[in-house]
Amino acid sequence: MDRLRIVQIGSGNVATHLSKALKDAGHHIVQVVGRSLENAQALGTQLGTAFTNSLAQLDSEADLYIISVADGDIPNVASLLPKLSGVVVHTSGSTPMETLKNTSDRCGVFYPLQTFSKLRDISLKGVPFCIEATDRDVVKTLSKVAQSIGGVPVEMDSQQRRWLHLMGVMSCNFVNHLFRISQEVGQSQGIGFSILKPLVEETISKAFDNGPEKSQTGPAVRGDLDTMGRHLEMLVDFDGRWKEIYGLLSKSIMKAGGMSPDKLDI
Amino acid sequence: MDRLRIVQIGSGNVATHLSKALKDAGHHIVQVVGRSLENAQALGTQLGTAFTNSLAQLDSEADLYIISVADGDIPNVASLLPKLSGVVVHTSGSTPMETLKNTSDRCGVFYPLQTFSKLRDISLKGVPFCIEATDRDVVKTLSKVAQSIGGVPVEMDSQQRRWLHLMGVMSCNFVNHLFRISQEVGQSQGIGFSILKPLVEETISKAFDNGPEKSQTGPAVRGDLDTMGRHLEMLVDFDGRWKEIYGLLSKSIMKAGGMSPDKLDI
Repeated sequence: MDRLRIVQIGSGNVATHLSKALKDAGHHIVQVVGRSLENAQALGTQLGTAFTNSLAQLDSEADLYIISVADGDIPNVASLLPKLSGVVVHTSGSTPMETLKNTSDRCGVFYPLQTFSKLRDISLKGVPFCIEATDRDVVKTLSKVAQSIGGVPVEMDSQQRRWLHLMGVMSCNFVNHLFRISQEVGQSQGIGFSILKPLVEETISKAFDNGPEKSQTGPAVRGDLDTMGRHLEMLVDFDGRWKEIYGLLSKSIMKAGGMSPDKLDI
Repeated sequence: MDRLRIVQIGSGNVATHLSKALKDAGHHIVQVVGRSLENAQALGTQLGTAFTNSLAQLDSEADLYIISVADGDIPNVASLLPKLSGVVVHTSGSTPMETLKNTSDRCGVFYPLQTFSKLRDISLKGVPFCIEATDRDVVKTLSKVAQSIGGVPVEMDSQQRRWLHLMGVMSCNFVNHLFRISQEVGQSQGIGFSILKPLVEETISKAFDNGPEKSQTGPAVRGDLDTMGRHLEMLVDFDGRWKEIYGLLSKSIMKAGGMSPDKLDI
């Protein structure tokens, strides 16, 4: 594998996990650029490399620039970069490649479909890296970089990636929020969240083995209005949105199962 | 372990998985009673045991009667049973033990917190069995039965079990429905659902390792109104409820994260 000289722009969750994995894979992170000097220093020190909070001090000789900043800040960072000869990519699911067009003749997207949190080491093994680039050579380079850290390169244009990001929000972010609601409901009754683990693990295995359309169980798909009604009553003492969430998801399940959702009175 | 003589009442998903596991563990399933003779015969034949669709032909000499029928049918089944000397239990999360009080002086609940589907073998290893009973002896008996099939007995009263069932609906049934929406959204763009597997697996691991309240990621918890707005637009061509689900869950995440949910315009 070619070892690349890489500049990491951004010092948050994605930047931290990605640049550590790249370093471990033998690439040379030549510089970390962060908006806050403190965060850039923290990551630069971890990686044993240079850091700065000024794009004016950017190392212009790198092979690859990886922009991992908040989605809304990507256009601004792109507008502040000089024209570079290296490859410039961002790691965002919902930002078009187009946003980077003035930064380099060779730009692209390098979007890891994974959820990153500080204080949690995660393996990138098997993680899909959605890749898009201005030309085939850059696609090849980015694919090799993904493979070098255990990822699975998947070619995808900006349009498809936007949809994949929406799928990820629903299947990861929304799922975690349902867990949080379950946890709080359980806490109110002295029931720990961890008791749900075998159930949740089987839910996931089943959905990926058999497909979610064949895996639906529970009161809504059975049309069990009594149980749903009791659950709705139990939720009245919590945030009003939780009851709405229960009602709306139940109705959506009923509809998907061929029932009339109007039977559920909420 | 004591090998029990067991009558299985009901022949659906739960009855099938449970009675097979009990037989494999060395218990003697002496009879299957089903509402439909066809289903009772199918399960009875699989288990190599007697079957009937008539409660009048019930074997009255068994040690344990397990009622695994639709929640709404439990009161009716209970009212049709003669007074029995064996232990009588149901396997429902949301039905009080009280419902069985006229069937035996020794009754209880034996609720496996798991999602069961036909055509899918699942292990009961590590699955919590929520147990409630009229006396300590019956609690002990049911705990041993749970352990004999690899389950983890957890003592819980009818009130707590009702809440646990609600938690299960949110963390299993609703989660599966979010997967189904993701799948359909992906299909419309030629993106397979399976690409989400590493993301979902990490979501689950993180939630159980670190707690869901510390694991929330995504546009809503970042207050990224642009991305949420674009996602809402992308959903307009689907079932109107999906857009509502996106908006409601995003607002609920924003609120849990200390933001004003009203900032999201839906």
